[in-house]
Amino acid sequence: MQEKTAQILQTSNDVIIMQGEAILGLEGALRSLVTPGMRVLNLVQGIFGKGTGYWLRDFGADVHELEVGYDDAVTPEMVEEYLDAHPGIEMVCLVASETPSGTVTDISRIGPMCRDRGILSYVDTVSGVLGMTHLTDEWGLDLCVTGPQKCLGGAPGLSLISVSQRAWDKIYSNPAAPRDSYLSLIDFKEKWLGEGRFPYTPSVSDINGLEAALDQALAEGVDEVIRRHIGARELTKAGARAMGLEFWAKREDSMSACVTSIRLPDDIDNAHVRDLARSRYGVMFSHGQGAGNLIRLSHMGPTAGGFHSIVGLAALGRTLLDLGMKLDVGAGVDAALGVLSGQRA
Amino acid sequence: MQEKTAQILQTSNDVIIMQGEAILGLEGALRSLVTPGMRVLNLVQGIFGKGTGYWLRDFGADVHELEVGYDDAVTPEMVEEYLDAHPGIEMVCLVASETPSGTVTDISRIGPMCRDRGILSYVDTVSGVLGMTHLTDEWGLDLCVTGPQKCLGGAPGLSLISVSQRAWDKIYSNPAAPRDSYLSLIDFKEKWLGEGRFPYTPSVSDINGLEAALDQALAEGVDEVIRRHIGARELTKAGARAMGLEFWAKREDSMSACVTSIRLPDDIDNAHVRDLARSRYGVMFSHGQGAGNLIRLSHMGPTAGGFHSIVGLAALGRTLLDLGMKLDVGAGVDAALGVLSGQRA
Amino acid sequence: MQEKTAQILQTSNDVIIMQGEAILGLEGALRSLVTPGMRVLNLVQGIFGKGTGYWLRDFGADVHELEVGYDDAVTPEMVEEYLDAHPGIEMVCLVASETPSGTVTDISRIGPMCRDRGILSYVDTVSGVLGMTHLTDEWGLDLCVTGPQKCLGGAPGLSLISVSQRAWDKIYSNPAAPRDSYLSLIDFKEKWLGEGRFPYTPSVSDINGLEAALDQALAEGVDEVIRRHIGARELTKAGARAMGLEFWAKREDSMSACVTSIRLPDDIDNAHVRDLARSRYGVMFSHGQGAGNLIRLSHMGPTAGGFHSIVGLAALGRTLLDLGMKLDVGAGVDAALGVLSGQRA
Amino acid sequence: MQEKTAQILQTSNDVIIMQGEAILGLEGALRSLVTPGMRVLNLVQGIFGKGTGYWLRDFGADVHELEVGYDDAVTPEMVEEYLDAHPGIEMVCLVASETPSGTVTDISRIGPMCRDRGILSYVDTVSGVLGMTHLTDEWGLDLCVTGPQKCLGGAPGLSLISVSQRAWDKIYSNPAAPRDSYLSLIDFKEKWLGEGRFPYTPSVSDINGLEAALDQALAEGVDEVIRRHIGARELTKAGARAMGLEFWAKREDSMSACVTSIRLPDDIDNAHVRDLARSRYGVMFSHGQGAGNLIRLSHMGPTAGGFHSIVGLAALGRTLLDLGMKLDVGAGVDAALGVLSGQRA
Repeated sequence: MQEKTAQILQTSNDVIIMQGEAILGLEGALRSLVTPGMRVLNLVQGIFGKGTGYWLRDFGADVHELEVGYDDAVTPEMVEEYLDAHPGIEMVCLVASETPSGTVTDISRIGPMCRDRGILSYVDTVSGVLGMTHLTDEWGLDLCVTGPQKCLGGAPGLSLISVSQRAWDKIYSNPAAPRDSYLSLIDFKEKWLGEGRFPYTPSVSDINGLEAALDQALAEGVDEVIRRHIGARELTKAGARAMGLEFWAKREDSMSACVTSIRLPDDIDNAHVRDLARSRYGVMFSHGQGAGNLIRLSHMGPTAGGFHSIVGLAALGRTLLDLGMKLDVGAGVDAALGVLSGQRA
Repeated sequence: MQEKTAQILQTSNDVIIMQGEAILGLEGALRSLVTPGMRVLNLVQGIFGKGTGYWLRDFGADVHELEVGYDDAVTPEMVEEYLDAHPGIEMVCLVASETPSGTVTDISRIGPMCRDRGILSYVDTVSGVLGMTHLTDEWGLDLCVTGPQKCLGGAPGLSLISVSQRAWDKIYSNPAAPRDSYLSLIDFKEKWLGEGRFPYTPSVSDINGLEAALDQALAEGVDEVIRRHIGARELTKAGARAMGLEFWAKREDSMSACVTSIRLPDDIDNAHVRDLARSRYGVMFSHGQGAGNLIRLSHMGPTAGGFHSIVGLAALGRTLLDLGMKLDVGAGVDAALGVLSGQRA
Repeated sequence: MQEKTAQILQTSNDVIIMQGEAILGLEGALRSLVTPGMRVLNLVQGIFGKGTGYWLRDFGADVHELEVGYDDAVTPEMVEEYLDAHPGIEMVCLVASETPSGTVTDISRIGPMCRDRGILSYVDTVSGVLGMTHLTDEWGLDLCVTGPQKCLGGAPGLSLISVSQRAWDKIYSNPAAPRDSYLSLIDFKEKWLGEGRFPYTPSVSDINGLEAALDQALAEGVDEVIRRHIGARELTKAGARAMGLEFWAKREDSMSACVTSIRLPDDIDNAHVRDLARSRYGVMFSHGQGAGNLIRLSHMGPTAGGFHSIVGLAALGRTLLDLGMKLDVGAGVDAALGVLSGQRA
Repeated sequence: MQEKTAQILQTSNDVIIMQGEAILGLEGALRSLVTPGMRVLNLVQGIFGKGTGYWLRDFGADVHELEVGYDDAVTPEMVEEYLDAHPGIEMVCLVASETPSGTVTDISRIGPMCRDRGILSYVDTVSGVLGMTHLTDEWGLDLCVTGPQKCLGGAPGLSLISVSQRAWDKIYSNPAAPRDSYLSLIDFKEKWLGEGRFPYTPSVSDINGLEAALDQALAEGVDEVIRRHIGARELTKAGARAMGLEFWAKREDSMSACVTSIRLPDDIDNAHVRDLARSRYGVMFSHGQGAGNLIRLSHMGPTAGGFHSIVGLAALGRTLLDLGMKLDVGAGVDAALGVLSGQRA
């Protein structure tokens, strides 16, 4: 199964599968890499990036941060400039896809930039993998963490982690790296990859569920799954725009392919919108988890592509209409259907 | 389980559960009731009613028929007039809900009319029960056949039959009634209702599936399930009309609450529409099974109410647009959403 | 799927899959073949064979019967002698495996005997297929009926039927053969094999369940599945004998490989044994369905082979001990384990 | 759900449900309680107790240990004597049920002893709860960790933890207690118990699975489940003894009710036994995970009681016979059946 996971991560690095929601892998990996005083550049454009910074400080790193608004993106140019000005940076941490705000960071350029300078890269790509191109080896990404419950369309409960040799070297030389612990990547490497056995009773259903999700994705094809997510974004964007909705993301080129976040007017609270959409139309929306007053139109995994976004658009549009906003829901549905018709023609 | 089935059939008559798609119950019941030369009035307003007539002739009945176009309905007045003019009729056969054409017959008036004249009634209500009011006992319906796979939202594979004492008397006095046969109602009455055992190995999964579907329907409430189907029809009608679609049914008061059939222009073949909707939008529509060039917007069982009809309307509308028809899909979706919003407010 | 069914029936004849417990296929097939006055030889060695005779009389055949005790078997020699003495016989009906009494009929010799004389053969092999060698084509068997719920290890609810060209000729020339009926083989041949569609709404779960069971059996291999059943019989017999139990079958060569029936002493009622085994040990046994005072140790489908029979033997033995019978349960378990150990060594 | 978990833990303390195999809860809880230099008495009678000691040293505790052979038990008397002699002990750590060796520690006496002296107690009872009486509140147990996959009969993947107010006080005053971490009990207390939301995406299937297992256990009754496990031990012991097997545990009163560990002769390797039992008889046994050359006859959750142990005994006995050991398997099965018969009479 780590072989199949490696295929979606496009890597020949070791793959570790830990038994816990992806946050376990993110924490375990970061604790494994960070040594006291280590100079780390953390890119912050959303709440998950912000959280990485809290951890880094807890773990004793010398934290540098490039932070922008949560509706914006840290660009490769900003990173390059920063690294030029601060030559001692040992690791860059970034979130490839900030799920709550629906924005992405350009790892295709930041990854190689780090590799070329000998800087480790730590990539939170929980909702990025399969929702965007992700070339672990080609871009030289050292440590990537994802989960089955986003674009792969599986169930939560596992952390999927790729670790480069360079990252292992750092981890093994780190006396603070978790060992004999639920947080330990080393335990998994030695017991599972080494001896072929789990460090503790594995969750058979989680493992079988992951395998089924991987098989389905690989049968469809990694590139095809990514294309499907991009197609979903295109029709969702067209529909939302024609309906009269405003995007949360300030830059269109930073909009993710798995979530389209919609900015709400100040006088309409997202909690109110979510309650009404659920009770009246049976459609559940997510919020920004603190990123701002927004509603997420998710299109990930099995809901990426086809009519799922039409339903989301119609339900969100009609709910906002019910709440007094001026919108042309029909025009939005027409526009989205038009894009979908063109994609499938 | 027959008790729960009796609740949805609103009867204290015996309930027989045969192991085969509802067509088994329809055939077994009709063979049980018909004796050679028996004068039977068969009401025909669709392909299932037409089929009943073929069976009646096969079984040797003296068949009388009141037939109208498959987009029309046989009215209680027509039946009353016919019965007045033909005093020797012993049984009336009718289809409460013609699924392929989406039309209903008014059993609330025809049932009592039969009972008051001492005429047996045989009611095919496979898609009628839970999609329309059905008062077996109050309306004096002698033999009703339904199945789990329509408005009950279960799986096909069983025939649910209510049999009045008057019907049993007729069946027991009929030497041609199936006995020791897969078609036999008598076997089930004697072995199952009598001795508490199946005449052969029962399909445990079918029986458990039926029970689960019944439990769900009874928890929601029979009247509430019916109301939900009617609500689905109202929003589907509003959407279809606003979009510019034409109803198949000539009389609005004969439109069923579980299917809204849409009449297609002569130059657009329903097979073409179904293929395109499926391949391009992932939405499957049913056809008229010979009733005419129509597309069915189904809203039965779990798909009755809420967004299911919005999806159907949008997918059908956009498919017809793709095929060159002039329609305002957005206006249709807007209208349907407006009705839905009002229903849930 | 009919291709896979044909593989387990070892035939290139048409395969019909009807939606109803195997009794549906048995009835439909017999009604299709029998014409009034047709001279039919029916072999009776158990309750299912007895029932075939009742049907034959109902359908108007001129019934000849060779009947033995339900713990005995009709031999090929008896059949040969009878056919020699009665040259006008047009069809032989037989039950390959009488499940309740656990006995078999030698179709490997009776089948060719019929073919060579131009006599049709009708074979009820519901529990025979995969529990014994069954070569439809090689032995010239005209009409065979089986089901998924016995040695195939699937769920009840379907009838699997093979029909030779000679049988079809007879059926098509028979005006009484069911047509436009749930009992009709002709409907299935014309609509399903001919037009690729079911005559009515199919039970998707039954069909998928059948396919899964067929895939499993074919992956294991037809011969291997049969060998597994024979192995189960051998260890069950050894255990039962060593324990001090008596076989129901008078001839060891007529004992089936899917059921070992145990004869109970007159003073111990099988209903009592079954109740006690279920309540005290959680093990359910079947009875003889009228064949006699016996208990069936079933070993069919997934329960054929391995420890299932050890459990059955221990539970039956201990229950009989509880009821006062003198038995050496431990010796029986030891003997069965010894056979199993040898089989797997 | 924490209410239902509290019922099986027999407590009104807070219950925390963490998303990871029970080892997560054990680690998180211990890290939460231990402060550098804290004087902790660790009871070691098996590999899990041994592991607790490694953790304690890692976390900086001043570790005292009472250790006996892994086939023996630390008695309340030994603990009392030690505590009398070492008045500064702040916490006692113990494993209520050592699964690999099948032995228990008497928490019914050690728990109150700690409470009465104002000493914290940390109890690993992963396989203890429901397999033995466990009165969290009555015995004053401060922190207990269990999981759904042992005597509760659920799936692995969750840690169920009860925390007394005294334990919370210690945790909140501990600067090293995990916070904002996958290992954190505090996060769960504040976010889940406090705000009613998970700290991260929960595994819906794990949570629903736990609830189903709890419902089943509570419907059967906590005392009844425990009685069932004890009954399983009694029949397993009787069978093993009569067969000629030797128990691993030196003291009969320390044998757990969920596992009967069998000591193997030196010349028969447990790995060999397990391989042969699996390949030849389809029965999987567990080993001692380092505790010694033993085979575990498990009887926990749904496999506690009834025929499961008979199967285990017969399979283990015959396997050992195949490997040349002298045993009377039949006598063992007879004895176990005799006990079972008596229990159910």
